Amino acid sequence: MSVPSQLSSTETLSLLSLSLACFGIIANTFHGDGEPLIASLAFSGIAFAASFSMIRWLGPTFMKAGLKGKDMSKVHKKEIPETMGAVCAVVYLLLIIMFIPFPFYKDIVAATSGGGNRDVVLEIHVVETGRFLHRFPHSKLASYLSAILSLQSVSILGIGDDLFDIRWRHKFFIPAFASIPILIVYFVDFGVTQIVIPTPLQPYFGELFELGPLYYLYMAAIAIFCPNSINILAGINGIEVSQSLVIAFLLVLNDTLYLLAPYPHPATDSHLFSLYMLLPFIGVSLALWWHNWYPARVFVGDTYCYFAGMVFAVVGILGHFSKTLLLLFIPQIFNFIYSSPQLFRIVPCPRHRLPRFNARTGLLEPSVTEWQHPPKPTVATVLKGLHKLHLIRVTTNREGQIIESSNLTLLNLWLVWFGPRREDRLAAEIVALQVVCGLLGLFVRHRLALWIFRSDNLTV
Amino acid sequence: MSVPSQLSSTETLSLLSLSLACFGIIANTFHGDGEPLIASLAFSGIAFAASFSMIRWLGPTFMKAGLKGKDMSKVHKKEIPETMGAVCAVVYLLLIIMFIPFPFYKDIVAATSGGGNRDVVLEIHVVETGRFLHRFPHSKLASYLSAILSLQSVSILGIGDDLFDIRWRHKFFIPAFASIPILIVYFVDFGVTQIVIPTPLQPYFGELFELGPLYYLYMAAIAIFCPNSINILAGINGIEVSQSLVIAFLLVLNDTLYLLAPYPHPATDSHLFSLYMLLPFIGVSLALWWHNWYPARVFVGDTYCYFAGMVFAVVGILGHFSKTLLLLFIPQIFNFIYSSPQLFRIVPCPRHRLPRFNARTGLLEPSVTEWQHPPKPTVATVLKGLHKLHLIRVTTNREGQIIESSNLTLLNLWLVWFGPRREDRLAAEIVALQVVCGLLGLFVRHRLALWIFRSDNLTV
Repeated sequence: MSVPSQLSSTETLSLLSLSLACFGIIANTFHGDGEPLIASLAFSGIAFAASFSMIRWLGPTFMKAGLKGKDMSKVHKKEIPETMGAVCAVVYLLLIIMFIPFPFYKDIVAATSGGGNRDVVLEIHVVETGRFLHRFPHSKLASYLSAILSLQSVSILGIGDDLFDIRWRHKFFIPAFASIPILIVYFVDFGVTQIVIPTPLQPYFGELFELGPLYYLYMAAIAIFCPNSINILAGINGIEVSQSLVIAFLLVLNDTLYLLAPYPHPATDSHLFSLYMLLPFIGVSLALWWHNWYPARVFVGDTYCYFAGMVFAVVGILGHFSKTLLLLFIPQIFNFIYSSPQLFRIVPCPRHRLPRFNARTGLLEPSVTEWQHPPKPTVATVLKGLHKLHLIRVTTNREGQIIESSNLTLLNLWLVWFGPRREDRLAAEIVALQVVCGLLGLFVRHRLALWIFRSDNLTV
Repeated sequence: MSVPSQLSSTETLSLLSLSLACFGIIANTFHGDGEPLIASLAFSGIAFAASFSMIRWLGPTFMKAGLKGKDMSKVHKKEIPETMGAVCAVVYLLLIIMFIPFPFYKDIVAATSGGGNRDVVLEIHVVETGRFLHRFPHSKLASYLSAILSLQSVSILGIGDDLFDIRWRHKFFIPAFASIPILIVYFVDFGVTQIVIPTPLQPYFGELFELGPLYYLYMAAIAIFCPNSINILAGINGIEVSQSLVIAFLLVLNDTLYLLAPYPHPATDSHLFSLYMLLPFIGVSLALWWHNWYPARVFVGDTYCYFAGMVFAVVGILGHFSKTLLLLFIPQIFNFIYSSPQLFRIVPCPRHRLPRFNARTGLLEPSVTEWQHPPKPTVATVLKGLHKLHLIRVTTNREGQIIESSNLTLLNLWLVWFGPRREDRLAAEIVALQVVCGLLGLFVRHRLALWIFRSDNLTV
């Protein structure tokens, strides 16, 4: 099967009508109060249509520029375009920039009309200073802009990574650089660095605990963790985009719970902000998913993983729900901890740890790392113990020395547990796991949190 | 001569001492009032050192990734790294982001200290709403952030252009997309769309003329013009960086004239903003210039031209001195108008219009475009007229039909006028021309402007 770079006529027609409908909706929002949420939905439709077509059209261009890769888990290892996440990121960024005026439409109208007395006495004042600037929520605008800046930074650095194949120990810190804009604006703008102490601990620490500079370290850690954790739960068709989509949908669900609250919730603004950032992200990701699900016609590249993780980090940090965010990352947290012996080189780490494709059966099997030298006695004991607990699979030689152990990723562990399976089935099962863990997380957040925190969303 | 990718020990030592000195200065600024201008100078030193070393170190990486080009105007057409402007852009963007808190240092201190009464009564208020946000110049922060966003957008799109070789008619609009952030923030934030009418015309149009939406078109036109005009005055070693450096230095001179005014000028803030953006730009550009001047060891790529032009457009638009800015672009404006017959295909336009290298003499000569079909009679008459005025050189066959005409660029015209010369001499002469035109422009602006405008810097 060759990769078609044209849209079929059905696709063209559908995407065109979707775009037209969305443009119509956006034009209509100007009649009312701006209706930013509806406009955001329409922008997301356009985001889907635009990235869907551009992923298709730019395929040959990417291949020609050398942005291509071989799909290793197929019988015919054909080359397909790589780094298509960059297309999604650029479409997303342009659209989210054009969306800026919408959340502020009401404020702009208020500021420009000047409460109706502009024509009477204030003409000169208006000319000299612009408009009624004191009425405008500039701090909201600044944090919105800083969010876009962080996402743009991570995209530039991600593209650099995809082009130059930066070393693991360097690229780990890419999101840290990219998080500087939100951290700085957070510092300049809010500066709230207290966290709410769980009720049982309040006698010892007080109601609020001032973290100070540590709070910025905590936020930087979130910004480093989210992108990297998506980037290491990767390697089979569709898995990067699917997990990101699940997290995005669950965050949208979480936001909706706040917006549908019977009373106006104090955190409404944060969650609206989160929706404005997430809906277009879902739009571009669905378009990418369409082309990246088994059998993949394009690869997403590290750019997508960084970009997706940064979207989550940004809404979590600026929306003040970073702890809730982490509840949706349970499989990623597990995968990260489980991977750490290889990341920190206690166990040898090959260049790629994706599951091994068995061309005879067409199924994926756990991939292994070979021990050139037998492990140290303590490491060997631990590995054999983990083997007994079915948390790893080791192969020993006749002397009982470990010669192979399965690579430490969630994907390999799943294959150890449930046996070889086809690529798409493995991806679907991991996605299902992500959904279940995430829903559990949200349940804990909304039903059980009041047991350990006295009130909901005071400052966090 | 091979391209060395290591720094010599002298270079390492110099760059290291420069960086250390700069870090020391930055650390020291925290003792006083923040001294953003001194900090900005120190950041520019770091910008120079960082981009100098990274341009050197990343050379082989760029070559390996296929970002390389042949230098056509040399006897030995060796391949050298291309798109090094992207390195400058990324270094610049990271540093300018880290610089954000400095111009706001005084405001942050004022907001956090709360005028000294924070500890007395306002504890809860502080916790609930962050800090004394009403004292903070959020609109300044927003326009600063939007400037960075525009520069980042143009860098991403420029890198895309360098990677995929986008067609001329598409890439012309890249800066238009990138200018959206500043235009939107300008709309949301200032909305001043009046221009001051020159005194002689005031009886007819009034003192101020409301341009309305046209003002945004005007700003977009500036943003499209500056990057593209630098991009088409290109093609010989060092010319792109040198002209940008001249414009940047002249803008700094212009800013300094305002800051040194005997009375506090109302536009002081705009010109401080301009300096904060320009000084680090000069830092990264000098490092690039060092490697790009004849004989070039790296190429700058379209990314640099877009990025440089956008820096100028951003300071001109947000600093409200776009007309002054255009006075510094006289050679570029001439080159653009002179090129337009080829840009609009009235005269055939080959892929490259750079001067032709004569390997025998080692000198550059005017390059020509060949007329496959003789031009239409009107076009032929005009061309022959221009030939008589020495504004173009045409070659005719025996029947008097035009078979060749020199390419319509300032560089070729210079060679037509003054004869063949070596690449570096041509570049130096064009740079000298830029300096003379720019100084004249500034003289007109500061000495003659009051003849046609009643007051200086009211709203423009």
